[in-house]
Amino acid sequence: MKNTFGSSVTMTLFGESHGSEIGVVLDGVAPGLLIDEDFIRSQLYLRRPHGKISTARVEDDPFRIVSGVFEGRTTGTPICILIPNTNTRSGDYSKGLPRPGHADYTAECKYHGYQDYRGGGHFSGRLTAPIVAAGAIALMMLRKNGIEIGTHIKTLAGIEDRPFGHLQTDIELLGDALFPVLRESSALAMQQAIEQAAQDGDSVGGVLETAVIGMPCGVGEPWFDTVEGVLSHALFSIPAVKGVEFGEGFAFADMRGSEANDGLRAVGGKVVTTTNHNGGINGGITNGMPILFRCAVKPTPSIFCEQDSVNLQTMQNETLTLKGRHDPAIIHRARVVVDSITALVLWDFLAQRFGTDFADID
Amino acid sequence: MKNTFGSSVTMTLFGESHGSEIGVVLDGVAPGLLIDEDFIRSQLYLRRPHGKISTARVEDDPFRIVSGVFEGRTTGTPICILIPNTNTRSGDYSKGLPRPGHADYTAECKYHGYQDYRGGGHFSGRLTAPIVAAGAIALMMLRKNGIEIGTHIKTLAGIEDRPFGHLQTDIELLGDALFPVLRESSALAMQQAIEQAAQDGDSVGGVLETAVIGMPCGVGEPWFDTVEGVLSHALFSIPAVKGVEFGEGFAFADMRGSEANDGLRAVGGKVVTTTNHNGGINGGITNGMPILFRCAVKPTPSIFCEQDSVNLQTMQNETLTLKGRHDPAIIHRARVVVDSITALVLWDFLAQRFGTDFADID
Amino acid sequence: MKNTFGSSVTMTLFGESHGSEIGVVLDGVAPGLLIDEDFIRSQLYLRRPHGKISTARVEDDPFRIVSGVFEGRTTGTPICILIPNTNTRSGDYSKGLPRPGHADYTAECKYHGYQDYRGGGHFSGRLTAPIVAAGAIALMMLRKNGIEIGTHIKTLAGIEDRPFGHLQTDIELLGDALFPVLRESSALAMQQAIEQAAQDGDSVGGVLETAVIGMPCGVGEPWFDTVEGVLSHALFSIPAVKGVEFGEGFAFADMRGSEANDGLRAVGGKVVTTTNHNGGINGGITNGMPILFRCAVKPTPSIFCEQDSVNLQTMQNETLTLKGRHDPAIIHRARVVVDSITALVLWDFLAQRFGTDFADID
Amino acid sequence: MKNTFGSSVTMTLFGESHGSEIGVVLDGVAPGLLIDEDFIRSQLYLRRPHGKISTARVEDDPFRIVSGVFEGRTTGTPICILIPNTNTRSGDYSKGLPRPGHADYTAECKYHGYQDYRGGGHFSGRLTAPIVAAGAIALMMLRKNGIEIGTHIKTLAGIEDRPFGHLQTDIELLGDALFPVLRESSALAMQQAIEQAAQDGDSVGGVLETAVIGMPCGVGEPWFDTVEGVLSHALFSIPAVKGVEFGEGFAFADMRGSEANDGLRAVGGKVVTTTNHNGGINGGITNGMPILFRCAVKPTPSIFCEQDSVNLQTMQNETLTLKGRHDPAIIHRARVVVDSITALVLWDFLAQRFGTDFADID
Repeated sequence: MKNTFGSSVTMTLFGESHGSEIGVVLDGVAPGLLIDEDFIRSQLYLRRPHGKISTARVEDDPFRIVSGVFEGRTTGTPICILIPNTNTRSGDYSKGLPRPGHADYTAECKYHGYQDYRGGGHFSGRLTAPIVAAGAIALMMLRKNGIEIGTHIKTLAGIEDRPFGHLQTDIELLGDALFPVLRESSALAMQQAIEQAAQDGDSVGGVLETAVIGMPCGVGEPWFDTVEGVLSHALFSIPAVKGVEFGEGFAFADMRGSEANDGLRAVGGKVVTTTNHNGGINGGITNGMPILFRCAVKPTPSIFCEQDSVNLQTMQNETLTLKGRHDPAIIHRARVVVDSITALVLWDFLAQRFGTDFADID
Repeated sequence: MKNTFGSSVTMTLFGESHGSEIGVVLDGVAPGLLIDEDFIRSQLYLRRPHGKISTARVEDDPFRIVSGVFEGRTTGTPICILIPNTNTRSGDYSKGLPRPGHADYTAECKYHGYQDYRGGGHFSGRLTAPIVAAGAIALMMLRKNGIEIGTHIKTLAGIEDRPFGHLQTDIELLGDALFPVLRESSALAMQQAIEQAAQDGDSVGGVLETAVIGMPCGVGEPWFDTVEGVLSHALFSIPAVKGVEFGEGFAFADMRGSEANDGLRAVGGKVVTTTNHNGGINGGITNGMPILFRCAVKPTPSIFCEQDSVNLQTMQNETLTLKGRHDPAIIHRARVVVDSITALVLWDFLAQRFGTDFADID
Repeated sequence: MKNTFGSSVTMTLFGESHGSEIGVVLDGVAPGLLIDEDFIRSQLYLRRPHGKISTARVEDDPFRIVSGVFEGRTTGTPICILIPNTNTRSGDYSKGLPRPGHADYTAECKYHGYQDYRGGGHFSGRLTAPIVAAGAIALMMLRKNGIEIGTHIKTLAGIEDRPFGHLQTDIELLGDALFPVLRESSALAMQQAIEQAAQDGDSVGGVLETAVIGMPCGVGEPWFDTVEGVLSHALFSIPAVKGVEFGEGFAFADMRGSEANDGLRAVGGKVVTTTNHNGGINGGITNGMPILFRCAVKPTPSIFCEQDSVNLQTMQNETLTLKGRHDPAIIHRARVVVDSITALVLWDFLAQRFGTDFADID
Repeated sequence: MKNTFGSSVTMTLFGESHGSEIGVVLDGVAPGLLIDEDFIRSQLYLRRPHGKISTARVEDDPFRIVSGVFEGRTTGTPICILIPNTNTRSGDYSKGLPRPGHADYTAECKYHGYQDYRGGGHFSGRLTAPIVAAGAIALMMLRKNGIEIGTHIKTLAGIEDRPFGHLQTDIELLGDALFPVLRESSALAMQQAIEQAAQDGDSVGGVLETAVIGMPCGVGEPWFDTVEGVLSHALFSIPAVKGVEFGEGFAFADMRGSEANDGLRAVGGKVVTTTNHNGGINGGITNGMPILFRCAVKPTPSIFCEQDSVNLQTMQNETLTLKGRHDPAIIHRARVVVDSITALVLWDFLAQRFGTDFADID
């Protein structure tokens, strides 16, 4: 499977940055779910560039649900969502010189030069828009079943947000914030760092941190289809994500077992852990505690400094100076993609475990 | 798919810690590959506990190839490898009290109490032995095609190994070292830290770092089946792995694009990058440079301190003090599992891209 | 996987009879294949109803390739093809009374009443149009590699066509015939039978027979992914197909082994069989001889006689008399769907065996 | 996937006719199912050759459950079942001359001569033994949920059995009959025909007919994963099966829609069909009526007449006269394989639809 992901709930992605439309087919959806198109719209709005800290290529994303929804509810058959590409400037792109940090050169290797190179073609971050549209449906489904997801920028250019506190409250707080940070002073400092990078023709990266509450215990598989494995598989789809860690993640390296283990306690007839260093997952399977993970997001590779490249026609070394409209940071826009991917993966796990009709849809 | 992984080359895992045998079925192998059973044996030897820094449960792993090999060569049909369990002490385990940091409680949730709880059952690290046996075959196949893999302990209990230098040399150096570290003084310090933890009835974690050389460019898929995504999916199968990062990984968070991008240069008619911050992968696809990644390994959860647990029959809080034979660290034993998983995943990518007979087997 | 089929080359289908568009995403296509849109158009033309022997719902099928084709050639990334629905008369359909022989009642069971019931919704034969569009691309690819597929109506309403003779010639003869029969007198008799059924408000079924020439030997898998198994899996997707047989098929029941076995002979340095009772497949794997199979096509269930049905709201027995525009036979239109499905499946087998770039595309 | 089949419930097959063991890994089984080893034994007994009408290679099939069963019940983790090969006579086989009607030549093409040729190697009908062992577990699971499967020989060498009557009664009647025929006089005539063929050094084929009762409605998928498609995919795994038809199957070719459609009636608050020409499936989805299908079984290719073959080393035409122990018919032994495959496929459909724990296991 190349552009299809999932087992019971699957997503198939298609399109290029400068084609007529991009889109997704979401299959395996339980029938009868009420589709709130405004919520899809608001999620796409979160992904869209806003203000000085983002690219000037702003598109309205007037998506169309082509199939799988009838009289406002899912039918159970594949949902195809189309989003037109409107604001394209293909003239900004030429084929000869691959951009460092992008997929231009690897696409050339894989597709022997037949790839649509304009705007990154199929590799463009633009294709996260249909993922967000599909993810919005997944989020609706999970919410109806008491599962909530929230992501904040934990670090950006060395600036830290405050840690997650009361998760329910923090997830609400993040809600539809265009710049998803828990502490306002951190948000301001981060935005300044982005603007500074933009002025320098440069870009910044960071770390996104995600919390999921309400997942039942006993979901996931031992060995190959662990919750960590499948989630990371999908999260690495997000352009610029280069690391994924669960619970303490890389910080486990300096801990001892006595610090890392989460003790178990019975509270109100339910088993909980006294700490949550393992991020809600043991042996690949949910333990009923919040799922916690972080994604490393590399700085946007589209920068305006002079860079080394190779003319693939002549095989001569050349220097490349980008034109066009680019993001000095995409991490704030990537958070809704992380939420979407997470929702789709968890929904798929639930449907595999409890059946395609598992959900309480009303 | 639950205990099966892969697309063209697949691995199916089965068994429990205290069952009669554990094993793996490896399918999709090109026919005609000469099987070196001694190499399988030597890889299993690397996984086995040795000395004071490991568990006293040592097993000989006298594997048997039940199918798929005829007259010393692969036939192209499924290879089943069986490894008997011999040195089991089931009396050390009881069902009532789930061990913190282990899968005992999540297994109870998922399997409603029907799981084989002895020694962790199906979740036992013991099941990495068949993965190593299958991985040895993958490593043989990759070597015949010029691809080499090496892993060292980058960090353990705050002690750092030296970074990778000349990769070919370092991979050879790591070869069949029982404690895979590049700088001898680091190795000694790390081993002391493990022994100290053992004396304290405690355990330590660390970070494994892996390099792959010789992979052709143009392998992997955009979006869902990126090399990062599929590799991390499989790597999270390794018990105790809680984070995976590629290239600079989480360090990207504090870099700017101008530092993170890898410039391109033509060298001898081939395109290379001037740095390798992206770890050999752009847009999910190999660029021909070495693949570099790191796995966070949490401290072994089996420790001898008193821990909080819940009696699942009575739902009363109790304290748990482990008996039995346990590892104060498994990171040095985990490296051969990382190499094995990596080899299996890359082989599968190559077989999907170039066909089941892609390999030069002679 | 629900509406996605294939391993290396995959097809994802979406849409409903009365939605705005129906479509398909074809993934895993080798890059660089020249796309002949006229050929896609001519294949869709073969699927379209013509004349008195078909439904009066005729649509132009002005497909749009939304992605995956750039400057006239495949890029290697997913190809999405959209076909608008224009000529719909939703008023002809109501939900209450399931039509016998259709999927109305089973859709109700599966989707709890949320399905789009208009014109059969997602179950409509209309969705074979995107399959034909995708299949046209597969046929182009196979032709470039010397593989040809042809299907004729072997039997219809008791009338037999002549058997396949020289396959190359017969496949050319069938080419773009709207009524794919090898012997003209049979064609006339069959068409009369269809017209007679139409006058009676009734419908007829038949048998389609397919030949594939040029497939290399050694393709397919033992046991589960036999050529027979995967082909039949896909062929049963075609609405109305209720049986699939290879080589002698059900006629084997009355043969002895001495009649059924195909002797082997060396001809010009190549092994051939003296007969082809096994239809080009032994042990699930191609033997290099023509692949031969037949599909049983049941009579169209949309007929104008009074039929028994149940009002699902009231659970009262009622009688149903269909209105609308229906086909008295679909077998002649189904043949291009059979060719398409066959091409897609064989292409997938070749890509799995020889790699995604296996093809000679120029 | 090559030797693995299924989505939620999967089966992975391995082994060769003359290897030490053959086996299967069954994964995705709900935990807690009581395993009746005697039932597995009795199913293997049905598959085993008996008397004059079968091969003289009789093996006891002393299977071993290596994993996934603990204290007599399934654990929910993979069940590996091993069956030793004991009664092998490898001297009866040589590699040079492929046997007509067998997979010898296609295996040579696919595996380049590295296949284990002894006794058909991986292609041997012997590998149906582990399928039967896995199928026995599936049959236990289905029975606990009110689903029963029965298969009889409908036709053999031109001799017809009586049609299915009252299905519940007939399924019980077939139960553990070594020669599964509903009418005793037909059974005798068929057995005589087999003995006659054996005396002639020849073999016979036939048709198996299967009925499934108790399946709920609404199971299966539209388009690609129809019940017909997935069942036929799996059924063609059975060596010698060359055709599969559902309901009236190929007899639909001569019917009109008015004869073929199954009217709907409400009976006791439930919808039933007045006839069952469609074999319990509409639009690929179960309608709650009995599932009915037939498999064409070709005559055993191992016959003792002189046959044409080609020496693959010399590429010279030669004649081949088989030695060894062979079945003059395998259809009576194949019925338990059909039941097993059917049970595994339907169980997988139920687990996908209703979740891995769908079953009432007590």
